[in-house]
Amino acid sequence: MTIKALTFDVFGTTVDWCSGIAREAEAALAPKGCDLDWIAFANSWRKEYNPAMEAVRTGGRPYETMDTLHREMLEGPLAEYDAPALTDQEKLDLSLAWRRLPAWPDAPAGLDRLREKFIVAALSNGNMALTLNLSKFAGIRWDIILGAELVQTYKPLPAVYDSASKYLDLDPSEIMMVACHVWDLDAAHTRGMKTAFVARPDEYGPGQSGPQPEPGTYDYQARDLTDLAEQLGC
Amino acid sequence: MTIKALTFDVFGTTVDWCSGIAREAEAALAPKGCDLDWIAFANSWRKEYNPAMEAVRTGGRPYETMDTLHREMLEGPLAEYDAPALTDQEKLDLSLAWRRLPAWPDAPAGLDRLREKFIVAALSNGNMALTLNLSKFAGIRWDIILGAELVQTYKPLPAVYDSASKYLDLDPSEIMMVACHVWDLDAAHTRGMKTAFVARPDEYGPGQSGPQPEPGTYDYQARDLTDLAEQLGC
Repeated sequence: MTIKALTFDVFGTTVDWCSGIAREAEAALAPKGCDLDWIAFANSWRKEYNPAMEAVRTGGRPYETMDTLHREMLEGPLAEYDAPALTDQEKLDLSLAWRRLPAWPDAPAGLDRLREKFIVAALSNGNMALTLNLSKFAGIRWDIILGAELVQTYKPLPAVYDSASKYLDLDPSEIMMVACHVWDLDAAHTRGMKTAFVARPDEYGPGQSGPQPEPGTYDYQARDLTDLAEQLGC
Repeated sequence: MTIKALTFDVFGTTVDWCSGIAREAEAALAPKGCDLDWIAFANSWRKEYNPAMEAVRTGGRPYETMDTLHREMLEGPLAEYDAPALTDQEKLDLSLAWRRLPAWPDAPAGLDRLREKFIVAALSNGNMALTLNLSKFAGIRWDIILGAELVQTYKPLPAVYDSASKYLDLDPSEIMMVACHVWDLDAAHTRGMKTAFVARPDEYGPGQSGPQPEPGTYDYQARDLTDLAEQLGC
């Protein structure tokens, strides 16, 4: 079947969360006398991501938005780096740093180019308001925002991928998941979706990427969204 | 409180369903020898809209998407105008005419202008795929698509308006409903939202509009989306 829609992972694939969080954490904490490795701080925060979601995925706790989880997860790096005391409002403001991240340089124009030929959707673990505000901040435009909040659980559980087919009114084989994370693509593949890997060699900091797939693992493998658009004939 | 987001009615307010359906119905039926008042045919189809939704709103039947209701509603005008027999596929294709309607001339640029200052969301009785495909066809860009499908019932029930506040993570008073229908704005007002009326004097055909409010009824009253953007300082 022809590909009609592309569903995108957001954090890592379209926005550079690591440098963005490092910058926001520095802006919040450096004036209080903190001097630390801000990239490491960002990674410390992000490493709470899977355990926080896992409690929801396994039914150990009810669904909470990623905004809420980000706020809770922040306690980890604050303790690890022995950060000075923050007020509740300061912690809330810093937790919303995940709404203020830069796009990868190729993302805004790449997505616009892909939107000329395909439906381009966000399919993120971010809640709707998080993906929305982040996208406005980063200058990224979607045709539609979908994701975890609409099914009250988190990727890589099947419900999130299946919801794309439902809300787009398309067969899973007409939808291609685009991500820089192999776990996300592998899960999408099991639900009948096409898959496209996008390399983000600096996701976790300069030269620090996640697992890279062997050539030919996915339907498409691209250097960035400009390359993906070219491969897809946009 | 400051207005941060605008939620838009779609059918009538941003797209010209009447001329669009008239054109699509003519394209489907004229080749079969039909010669009739296509604007009247469009209005006949649309008049099934409220009864179809009311069955869902009152709990008389489970939620069905507006795409499905459009398909069912089509039997009304086909019978009324004694149209020639259509195959199931032809009926399905014609029912999806509601995904192929023209924007009002001011809508694409007006919405883009409003998006520079506000979050601009669809809040339609159309299901996600209907609003999405229609918007792509009409050249209309949203920051986010919300609406009836996410709460499995229809405007003007409170659940639809309340869902905007939930998914946007905003207080209702920070959101303004924009519509050419007074019933929609009156319902939004009861949920604590701001309200903006946009005149669509030709909604039901040339010179055929719905009820017009007295001056001062809503927070804003505008001639079109260009005028609304100017009033809102965009």
